[in-house]
Amino acid sequence: MKVAVPTADLAEALRKVLNVVTARSTLPVLGNVLLSARGGELSLATTDLEVSISTAVGAEVSREGEATLMGRKFGQLVGTLSGDKVTIEIDEQMTAAIVCGSARFRLLGLNAAEFPKEAPFTAQRELSFPGGEFTKILRKIAYAVSVDQTRYVLNGILLSVKEGAFTAVATDGRRLALVEKNLEEGTAMATGDAILPIKVVKELQRLLVGNEDIAIKLSDTRASFTVGKTVLTSKLVEGSYPNYRQVIPSAFTNSVALPRETFIRVLDRVSVVVSDSGAAVKCALSENAMTLSASSAEIGEASEPIEVTYQGTPVNISFNPQFLRDPLTNLEADDITLKFNDEFKPVVVLGDEGFLCVIMPMRN
Amino acid sequence: MKVAVPTADLAEALRKVLNVVTARSTLPVLGNVLLSARGGELSLATTDLEVSISTAVGAEVSREGEATLMGRKFGQLVGTLSGDKVTIEIDEQMTAAIVCGSARFRLLGLNAAEFPKEAPFTAQRELSFPGGEFTKILRKIAYAVSVDQTRYVLNGILLSVKEGAFTAVATDGRRLALVEKNLEEGTAMATGDAILPIKVVKELQRLLVGNEDIAIKLSDTRASFTVGKTVLTSKLVEGSYPNYRQVIPSAFTNSVALPRETFIRVLDRVSVVVSDSGAAVKCALSENAMTLSASSAEIGEASEPIEVTYQGTPVNISFNPQFLRDPLTNLEADDITLKFNDEFKPVVVLGDEGFLCVIMPMRN
Repeated sequence: MKVAVPTADLAEALRKVLNVVTARSTLPVLGNVLLSARGGELSLATTDLEVSISTAVGAEVSREGEATLMGRKFGQLVGTLSGDKVTIEIDEQMTAAIVCGSARFRLLGLNAAEFPKEAPFTAQRELSFPGGEFTKILRKIAYAVSVDQTRYVLNGILLSVKEGAFTAVATDGRRLALVEKNLEEGTAMATGDAILPIKVVKELQRLLVGNEDIAIKLSDTRASFTVGKTVLTSKLVEGSYPNYRQVIPSAFTNSVALPRETFIRVLDRVSVVVSDSGAAVKCALSENAMTLSASSAEIGEASEPIEVTYQGTPVNISFNPQFLRDPLTNLEADDITLKFNDEFKPVVVLGDEGFLCVIMPMRN
Repeated sequence: MKVAVPTADLAEALRKVLNVVTARSTLPVLGNVLLSARGGELSLATTDLEVSISTAVGAEVSREGEATLMGRKFGQLVGTLSGDKVTIEIDEQMTAAIVCGSARFRLLGLNAAEFPKEAPFTAQRELSFPGGEFTKILRKIAYAVSVDQTRYVLNGILLSVKEGAFTAVATDGRRLALVEKNLEEGTAMATGDAILPIKVVKELQRLLVGNEDIAIKLSDTRASFTVGKTVLTSKLVEGSYPNYRQVIPSAFTNSVALPRETFIRVLDRVSVVVSDSGAAVKCALSENAMTLSASSAEIGEASEPIEVTYQGTPVNISFNPQFLRDPLTNLEADDITLKFNDEFKPVVVLGDEGFLCVIMPMRN
């Protein structure tokens, strides 16, 4: 193959695909990027056998073909180039001659035939989200995914479509975050569940930097995400997601609205004295008054009031401060609402449209 | 003690002193910051028994006194405050009541008597450098300090004054960097050597962010550095610095001038193929031509020419690319000069006024 591509486009394409290359695998080709020159494009692909990413850049193709090159080295090399255009010519021995301005390189490659082929993938369901919406949904719930590897079903987020509504859910058993939105008519074919591994969620968050539209295709075992010319494919987590609806209380006796950013700042100040201990922060509510407080025998105490409008019964609820902070810092609404019954039952945080987070209080 | 201080001033003062607190020492007070309220100032001091830093902020002192508070926690706490002013009142039990706006804290402290007292320190020699000059000197040589802990004399930089000239030197045995400057008349009292531990060099580089003047006081065993209201004191490295003059070649048969930034960029590109291996980058000089090249059996090859004016004998010199890169990236001059005799003898890099770096070539 022989191609010429704009250096900046090639660097950006490599940034997208190189995150999944595995430097020291028993299968050396997994450390490589597959280059395919065809039509007016150079496409680049990487895989770690679980997640695969491919993208393409416009190129002057003088000789079609494909080959693989060591991913990290190729990425480093392209990152140092200062000329506008880079020419890549790969011979029969899979050695690449790379030229940019007066800089010349020879980089050893591997045959494209060694690169694992994607199994064919037939989409049974499709979903799409306009400009940036899907990233925002991921951001609002991803922190709640379980890190306990024995609960592998919870090591991902649930994407569920049912009765014209889309729901994305994450939970670690002590808290749950979800975003729900109504789908437009005619998307009924999307009905069903899929559990997306957290690794893919993080990779998508890294890929989706702007306000790109995203198209999602799902089969029973796999998913693909298309953003412009970039496609990420992944296995889904096998298994059934637990019935998360049952942990959401059906009614609340009390609620209080709070300015989101003020709440974060007060929480951060009060948390300082317990930050390394896993101890609770206490929210004490009485008529038109809320005070956050915390204490630790080794460090000291902290307390600070927040102005609120509250007419309910006085109540003291204790929280893991991180569990409160996570939804607060990932929402966009100016105000959030806490809904609750008493100091033992699950508390709900509401804010952005369609968002809900359930938090189990801590016992004092 | 009871004081009120502007929150931003306190945060900045803590940033300066907190780097040397030791979180988990057998001596818990080393994790604390000493607060002393006296006159119109609150002074803050920390020590790790080798390096001590103190600074002061203007304060409204309602009750003089001193006490120590857990350094990291106090720093974290002040970092979260959003009010303009913070009040600190420390009682007889060494508990601090800290108030900022409506936020209230109690932080447990330790008696100031437990804080290690600095031994009295009589300066025998003094040196001073105007706005930022000392930081630049440190930057131009610090990379060459030896990391081999068995050669403890080389784990610091030499500050030497002799015959009206100041010299700062660092070497690890394979390269040497120095900056020399003539001192003004009347600084004769500064004559002598001192070896400053690299830890102090790094701490000074962190403290000296702007173009502050610095005053240095030296005794046979200790040094102090005063920048505004901040004073860093440290032990010096004991022992005699080797005679570094003897590694600087007295004459050169050839030299070549190179544009510094271009040289860095070409070096970075060519080094990619050997970056993990410790292999050499080759500089091949012939009439009006210089080519940098490198190769590795596992990765491939790279080469790139740089335009130069050169009339000397053709020569091939191999370098550890990092040893070339370090002086190049820490200098300011537009052009640098390489001076050399042949491919085996030490090569000298010249650039900024008073700067010199000796590099031993690698054998091929």
